[in-house]
Amino acid sequence: METVSETRAFGGVQGVYKHTSEATSCEMTFAVYLPPDAEEGPVPCLWYLSGLTCTHENAMTKAGAQGWAADYGVALIFPDTSPRGEGVANDESYDLGQGAGFYVDATETPWAPHFRMYSYLTEELQTLVTGNFPIAADRQGITGHSMGGHGALTLGINRPDLYRSISAFSPIAHPSASDWGRKQLTAYLGADEAKWADHDAALLLKSRGCTAEILVDQGAEDEFLPLLRADALTSALVASGTPHCYRYQPGYDHSYFFVSSFMEDHVAWHAERL
Amino acid sequence: METVSETRAFGGVQGVYKHTSEATSCEMTFAVYLPPDAEEGPVPCLWYLSGLTCTHENAMTKAGAQGWAADYGVALIFPDTSPRGEGVANDESYDLGQGAGFYVDATETPWAPHFRMYSYLTEELQTLVTGNFPIAADRQGITGHSMGGHGALTLGINRPDLYRSISAFSPIAHPSASDWGRKQLTAYLGADEAKWADHDAALLLKSRGCTAEILVDQGAEDEFLPLLRADALTSALVASGTPHCYRYQPGYDHSYFFVSSFMEDHVAWHAERL
Repeated sequence: METVSETRAFGGVQGVYKHTSEATSCEMTFAVYLPPDAEEGPVPCLWYLSGLTCTHENAMTKAGAQGWAADYGVALIFPDTSPRGEGVANDESYDLGQGAGFYVDATETPWAPHFRMYSYLTEELQTLVTGNFPIAADRQGITGHSMGGHGALTLGINRPDLYRSISAFSPIAHPSASDWGRKQLTAYLGADEAKWADHDAALLLKSRGCTAEILVDQGAEDEFLPLLRADALTSALVASGTPHCYRYQPGYDHSYFFVSSFMEDHVAWHAERL
Repeated sequence: METVSETRAFGGVQGVYKHTSEATSCEMTFAVYLPPDAEEGPVPCLWYLSGLTCTHENAMTKAGAQGWAADYGVALIFPDTSPRGEGVANDESYDLGQGAGFYVDATETPWAPHFRMYSYLTEELQTLVTGNFPIAADRQGITGHSMGGHGALTLGINRPDLYRSISAFSPIAHPSASDWGRKQLTAYLGADEAKWADHDAALLLKSRGCTAEILVDQGAEDEFLPLLRADALTSALVASGTPHCYRYQPGYDHSYFFVSSFMEDHVAWHAERL
């Protein structure tokens, strides 16, 4: 692991790091924010998964999370959204390939060799981060925005042993039944839809429920609302009896102005549960 | 004036607007954040002037100011840093021409026709903003970062009738004696250094002082410290008897992580005085 930069922020340290990943067979960049409390011992952490076209950098610079993380004594982890580089498969569209990993382990050509974001996040980066930073491995929460909200929900529901609290901002909630999902799951996992179910929050909730509480914020004026399938998420949350708080926020769109407006609530919500 | 976008943020509205400027003879873009309080009547405002290479957008997306502006009931105005466009003079270097207006009215070729940021901000945009938004014209403060800190200090000291409170993040404080200044003031105002004095905060303080209180935050690990001439600013503040608070912040660099770390203090400081 190599340090790209470390910058003081809100009394803590915003770092950017890179390493050669075994899971994705390429160099990966990620960011970690350590609050001042981390100088005195391990702190809980919140994973933030980003959306389509993003890198580790978008939320790190635009979500305004570090100030709240400092206040609440929580570390933040900002991974990239896909493998990257010259030897890594890609697609001309913004919503497939590099910048659009969808947090799955691809099984299909040409994606399978590198697009293994599920294993990368739940195993390799998990071990790397908890092993190299003062982070309490048993006090982890996960959140994300849009495609990253999809990632937060699916990783969170699939791995209750890792993530004790789950939240999401305007998540892609039912990718099996959306143009933000069907194309990508077909490309990465193949045409057999049965293989998609473990990576669809609405289906996961219905099939196995979720014991962790889930917080979701959704902008009512979100320009991508039909693609997110918020309707499927709310009905699955209720049908599965999942303890949750779903907030439909009047006037807000899909942007980082929406994310940053409610970031304090999410950091506080995770901090309470961690 | 044309609305480019209006987005809900922290219960208020983050807008981006453009207009054809008489002062700079080109199309100018600027952003205004209105806090929720602005729905009930005019609110005080804080001008934020940005640094080299920036547009209206950098601070709008990275400084984390809107949340505090909503809390304290203050509007934010984010102007661009120079005229722009195909017909506007430019230079290959990052620190002269477009993105580097230095908040002066140029008198020299080829800059004079468009590079009139001082008049643009203190007259034209001043009138446009106070006339079109619920902003109290007699309750304005000014701040900025780096070259924008230079702008905040020089505009604030030159126009006490407009700006009742002044602050700056890591300002260029003595451009007449720095490589961030001599080159640009020569290009825009000519070789006669006497004409630079009205646009040099350290010289302005010594020659006329400042009755408004000034708040300055400076990162102790700022990689551009020698170019900013912080030493000249602190000695001029003391020598002129200007009421001020100068904070030299250990560990912080020149980045927006530094700016955002202390943004709440600046918004609160202006709100108290407005």
